[in-house]
Amino acid sequence: MEEVKVGLVGLGTVGSGVYELIAQNGEFIAQKTGLRLTVKKILVRDLAKPRPVSSPPELLTTQAEEIFGDPEIKIVCELLGGIEPAKTYILEALRAGKAVVTANKAVLAEHGEEVFRTAQETGQALFFEAAVGGGVPIIKTLRESLSANRIQNLTAIVNGTCNYILTRMLEEGRPLPEVVAEAQKLGLAEADPSLDLSGLDSAHKIAILATLTQGSYISSEKVYVEGIEGLEPLDLAFAQELGFVTKLLALACLKEGGLEIRVHPTLVPQGHMLASVRLAYNAFLLKGDFVGQVLLYGLGAGAKPTASAVVADLLDAARQLQSGTSPPPLLYRASSPALIPMEEVVSRYYFRFSALDRPGVLSKIAGILGQHQISIASVIQKERREGEAVPIVMLTHEAREKAVRQALKEIDQLEVVAAPTKLLRILES
Amino acid sequence: MEEVKVGLVGLGTVGSGVYELIAQNGEFIAQKTGLRLTVKKILVRDLAKPRPVSSPPELLTTQAEEIFGDPEIKIVCELLGGIEPAKTYILEALRAGKAVVTANKAVLAEHGEEVFRTAQETGQALFFEAAVGGGVPIIKTLRESLSANRIQNLTAIVNGTCNYILTRMLEEGRPLPEVVAEAQKLGLAEADPSLDLSGLDSAHKIAILATLTQGSYISSEKVYVEGIEGLEPLDLAFAQELGFVTKLLALACLKEGGLEIRVHPTLVPQGHMLASVRLAYNAFLLKGDFVGQVLLYGLGAGAKPTASAVVADLLDAARQLQSGTSPPPLLYRASSPALIPMEEVVSRYYFRFSALDRPGVLSKIAGILGQHQISIASVIQKERREGEAVPIVMLTHEAREKAVRQALKEIDQLEVVAAPTKLLRILES
Repeated sequence: MEEVKVGLVGLGTVGSGVYELIAQNGEFIAQKTGLRLTVKKILVRDLAKPRPVSSPPELLTTQAEEIFGDPEIKIVCELLGGIEPAKTYILEALRAGKAVVTANKAVLAEHGEEVFRTAQETGQALFFEAAVGGGVPIIKTLRESLSANRIQNLTAIVNGTCNYILTRMLEEGRPLPEVVAEAQKLGLAEADPSLDLSGLDSAHKIAILATLTQGSYISSEKVYVEGIEGLEPLDLAFAQELGFVTKLLALACLKEGGLEIRVHPTLVPQGHMLASVRLAYNAFLLKGDFVGQVLLYGLGAGAKPTASAVVADLLDAARQLQSGTSPPPLLYRASSPALIPMEEVVSRYYFRFSALDRPGVLSKIAGILGQHQISIASVIQKERREGEAVPIVMLTHEAREKAVRQALKEIDQLEVVAAPTKLLRILES
Repeated sequence: MEEVKVGLVGLGTVGSGVYELIAQNGEFIAQKTGLRLTVKKILVRDLAKPRPVSSPPELLTTQAEEIFGDPEIKIVCELLGGIEPAKTYILEALRAGKAVVTANKAVLAEHGEEVFRTAQETGQALFFEAAVGGGVPIIKTLRESLSANRIQNLTAIVNGTCNYILTRMLEEGRPLPEVVAEAQKLGLAEADPSLDLSGLDSAHKIAILATLTQGSYISSEKVYVEGIEGLEPLDLAFAQELGFVTKLLALACLKEGGLEIRVHPTLVPQGHMLASVRLAYNAFLLKGDFVGQVLLYGLGAGAKPTASAVVADLLDAARQLQSGTSPPPLLYRASSPALIPMEEVVSRYYFRFSALDRPGVLSKIAGILGQHQISIASVIQKERREGEAVPIVMLTHEAREKAVRQALKEIDQLEVVAAPTKLLRILES
């Protein structure tokens, strides 16, 4: 039995979950793996703060040196969240010759290059399963299980908060602000939910995953992002009538011209595996050149699922230390693939036009679409409700984003169009 | 760059897929992992047989000793299928001090105890990702990613052939023999499909997975098995009308009294993730005490997905060899959990009675169910078609299998019942 001493940095929700998991299942894990995990020190900012878990007071310290300077501590587990001081601690731990386990998606998405390079230069192992997908083993699956494959396509629901909100909006016909308030009460959304709703959190995560599949660093700044703030129950209901479920998807697709990487609300055909992903669940649909389609699904957040991923990483880090070898580099390619600009993306589209109830409106709209080579696949026009503009919903065949933007700009300038057209993209089948 | 020399045993469909994968992606894998896989020898029975892949003739041998006796070959990859000589080769390789990668579910399910014990005694690594779920990384997920969890529940679609047949039967209303013939033409079913249709193949796989989650050997002989041979389009259609999709499920559930392990056709509620698994796909739904529900989905068979899993195992085996340590034992518990006999299982049920069109039939059937404390949740009775018995379909609330069997025995002896009652179980929600 080998004892593995760990230094925890942070004892918030996730830190407490990790502490609790080791307390509860540590003996079982030792029996199974031959590795006994021991938390030797926990770095916190305030010794007196009340915490979700009661750890022995002698484990707590406010002095980083007690972890980074302790040669017995071989693995540092960073669970603070946010950029600083988390980033500094991760780099410091690597430079102090320790393996690092982190759940920090923000540091990896915004400063991944520095962190990954530092891990490579110091020869230390860096594990971050919990940074994406909570308890879902997407990182290990990409790094190890599918390592024989070229990953051609990754389509994912990576933000449980948004998926919860969209599920409730669709199933109960309620508007976004009301459901956001409910999610906040349930602890499923932050007091300031903008990082989730804007799609930025999803952009962080898809950037990390694309970095893994490409072997070169892709910053989250390169991701095209639209959030769910503008979605109305009306659009979700129209999409459902047309056979689709609306999801916030994060996509990274290798095309002939390079990599498309984007986050936006997307119409997913009913019956598609991703359409069945309800509430706060995450799902990752991959396509590899040999394995074909693989999907992973589970809870993407929460203390316990996240702790499951962190402890799996601690065990991997311990095994890596036993081996005495350096892990293979994460960034094994010198340069990133070309990124395809959003304007060049080809997709099918959902449009909802807000038309005034006058003769010839449909003809004008259809005419402009035709001029831009955008071909219509289906139309729904319902009777006007008193005093409102008439919603005209169209699905298109494949069209280029650039043409679509130009066409909508012209359409939205028509006198007979009362409000900006709503645009949603349809998942490629 | 480390070169890793592999001996292949078998060059059929899967062996050829592995050879092709290494030829096609070997350079990419080397760049990514620092490990260059080289097939040094391939053991075949007949040098002259035409094969799906053209490997250099000097790699082929009919002499086992050229692999087992070669100290340069550190990993033996057994891809023969069937019990013998595969089992002998696996044991011989382990005893010769080589790591073993195998895709052989039959050997592991029927002789797993001997194979796992031999791996532990010799201190050699044994990898078998491809034995269950083809390209889906279910084995590694259980062994590593979820290793911090106690797995409470495993519900899986593990036989792509049966899932293909059930999908077509449901969606096209066609009878089983016709769809089986189609699946055989497409190469999705064997010439003798009985191992798949009988549920035995699924029993093999769930026994291997339960062995992993329990840490003690569970033979496939212990699994309660019903296949899909008796299913009619009529039952699939009734189930659909009631809101369910019929799937052949393999289940291993920890209950208070022990482990339930069984394979049978099961009604899965529409909207459940497993209900969306169509055609030849497999899916594994796990519940761990920390991670909650996790689902893995992908192609469970075929040369390329299986090769993806085998090569991932080869890379893991190579890393294990680098480490110079022994892998943790697979059988880490001295004894198996108690297995709950099928008669004690509690489930909801679907019954289809074949009643003669006479007064009082429903009352007689309902009366017998009531005497056995089986409570009815819903009933469908359609009008009689000319000359046929009337199908009466019932769903029950939870009942014990023993009581259900006794009740059906009595019902089937009624004069007004024309044929044995069809019984299907409903997935616990």
